[in-house]
Amino acid sequence: MTGPDEMRTYPVERLEEFSARVFRHFGVPEADARQAADVLAASDLRGIDSHGVARLHTYFDMLTLGRINPRPEIRIVRELPGTATVDGDNGLGLVVGPWANRVAMEKAEAVGSAWVGVCNTTHFGIAGYYPLQALGRGLIGWAMTNAGPLVAPLWSADRMLGTNPIAIAFPGGEEPPIVIDMATSAVAFGKVEIAMRQGRPIPEGWAVDADGRPTTEPRGLIEGGALLPLGGDREHGGHKGYCLAAMVDILSAVLSGADWGPFAPPFALRRDLPARGVGRGIGHSFGAMRIDGFLDPDEFKSRIDEWIRAFRAARPASGTSGLLIPGDPERQAEAVRRTSGIPLVPAVVEDLRDIARQTGIPFD
Amino acid sequence: MTGPDEMRTYPVERLEEFSARVFRHFGVPEADARQAADVLAASDLRGIDSHGVARLHTYFDMLTLGRINPRPEIRIVRELPGTATVDGDNGLGLVVGPWANRVAMEKAEAVGSAWVGVCNTTHFGIAGYYPLQALGRGLIGWAMTNAGPLVAPLWSADRMLGTNPIAIAFPGGEEPPIVIDMATSAVAFGKVEIAMRQGRPIPEGWAVDADGRPTTEPRGLIEGGALLPLGGDREHGGHKGYCLAAMVDILSAVLSGADWGPFAPPFALRRDLPARGVGRGIGHSFGAMRIDGFLDPDEFKSRIDEWIRAFRAARPASGTSGLLIPGDPERQAEAVRRTSGIPLVPAVVEDLRDIARQTGIPFD
Repeated sequence: MTGPDEMRTYPVERLEEFSARVFRHFGVPEADARQAADVLAASDLRGIDSHGVARLHTYFDMLTLGRINPRPEIRIVRELPGTATVDGDNGLGLVVGPWANRVAMEKAEAVGSAWVGVCNTTHFGIAGYYPLQALGRGLIGWAMTNAGPLVAPLWSADRMLGTNPIAIAFPGGEEPPIVIDMATSAVAFGKVEIAMRQGRPIPEGWAVDADGRPTTEPRGLIEGGALLPLGGDREHGGHKGYCLAAMVDILSAVLSGADWGPFAPPFALRRDLPARGVGRGIGHSFGAMRIDGFLDPDEFKSRIDEWIRAFRAARPASGTSGLLIPGDPERQAEAVRRTSGIPLVPAVVEDLRDIARQTGIPFD
Repeated sequence: MTGPDEMRTYPVERLEEFSARVFRHFGVPEADARQAADVLAASDLRGIDSHGVARLHTYFDMLTLGRINPRPEIRIVRELPGTATVDGDNGLGLVVGPWANRVAMEKAEAVGSAWVGVCNTTHFGIAGYYPLQALGRGLIGWAMTNAGPLVAPLWSADRMLGTNPIAIAFPGGEEPPIVIDMATSAVAFGKVEIAMRQGRPIPEGWAVDADGRPTTEPRGLIEGGALLPLGGDREHGGHKGYCLAAMVDILSAVLSGADWGPFAPPFALRRDLPARGVGRGIGHSFGAMRIDGFLDPDEFKSRIDEWIRAFRAARPASGTSGLLIPGDPERQAEAVRRTSGIPLVPAVVEDLRDIARQTGIPFD
């Protein structure tokens, strides 16, 4: 018998195959379905449980309601040798994102560096997926995206910005790569939901209530409040987190012609749609750089190795096991999960079974 | 009679002229001296008191000791159409920075976007100066720099990173530009020094002591402790601030061949020089993008106007006067200071008088 809180574990290949079949069910072309499933699987492998198959039901809902175009004609609408704007034709962000990221990489390969903005797109999975693709081509890659509003800028009471992540990665030589992938909010919305379910208060600096007052009560956030930007209050640098979220919003959405700030459509059925549109869809931004445009790539990689070793050799703070290199936790999760499989909580298993029932695609 | 805490106010032109003459005193060429003085004056005008003439005595000391080359041969050592590495020949960062930023802007004008790394350079003033130059050419500009170590990465007890700022700016049409210029530490070192002088504790989340334990005692930081990255502790996202500081360090210094992380030479006589060198000088990174590589520039500017107006219209958090647009405080300071002059604390006035005594250049 399986208890209500017991995890079940699935081989990643099986989850990926299921995701791909679900996308194909809606007429998503074979290669696109595999691409989309690959992005979700990368998230599950790397331990970012919130962005893997746990989101499949939302993609399923959006496709069912016709809110995502399964067969988009993605195209470049404006470009220079080192720039482009891509219109994603309201396709899956899991397909549009990789397409636009390839444009950024190809342009960087041609002229040394490039930025690509994307409009008319939807949730693109983990931001970290994209710089990992760039690593595979020997490039430094960036990814950013805006998202439905959840964060109140410092001194505001309104949800004006998403959790707007920034990702970038750097290759090591003998050491594994440094992979940065971080939301610009103080904390993920999901952490507040967990605290609410457990009846626990949340730390100061995570959230404000509907009047913009600091709150330690999860309900204060859920019922019309907002997350705080990284830094939290003024004293701890909340204005800086707001600046970062604004930067991501402007590069991803204002510059590409997408819906920015509070007008970004949420990736969730239960959240209200924005009052009006100011563009098309959400927006992403991808950057890429050729390392040999700056330094001999072998020299760069050995400098990164040296950086990693110097940081690992730093004295641990009293009572801790010492610092981590960005990307360590995800790489460790991947090492375990590739062999042991992906643990899913019962609610996610139930979501996947629900999709199976509605589509006839076997699961479990 | 002037009390010990009384500010004196000087026209910015007078301070700028004094700075330029001080640089020329060391054989800095006329145009370079004016350039360097312009960067310092921009900081004083924008209210960033820590980075204006308040730093002139340190530049003076470094030039006196021969630690900065007054007549550098700045050159591009590697490049592609959209990239370059610039060797600053150990010149004033206030001269090398603008030189390299011009390379980034020219390359972006040619191919749409560009990144330029800089090694063998020194303190470049406020990061915000550089994207403001890009605005003047109708571009979006970025600037980052590493700096002498003051920040302990999460779970480390050692100073491994500088306060490593990120700056970027976006032009408005009818509205003033959005200008972001932020250190990636939770707070500036100077704020802790002020608390120590006033005998006040500092908030949790700002600093750790020499063993890496959280401290609210300014002395804990000053005596071998470290600043915390933006976010502070783990619960509040300190790992994210660490990621940002690492990103700036790698783009500015690892990629350009400069001294990275704990090996970045400090811009202060009283701080120890690093145990060894791993490159040359500190490092900067400048990015530039042509707006018309993404969107019609007039459309972009009117979208930025709309963004600013939507954000200004957000409800103020209870008990606050509402959110600010990044760049507001600096622009307000500049409006006042252009007409009323730059207020200097007595210690800075005394520093400038000391330079005057040593050089014979009149001041006051």
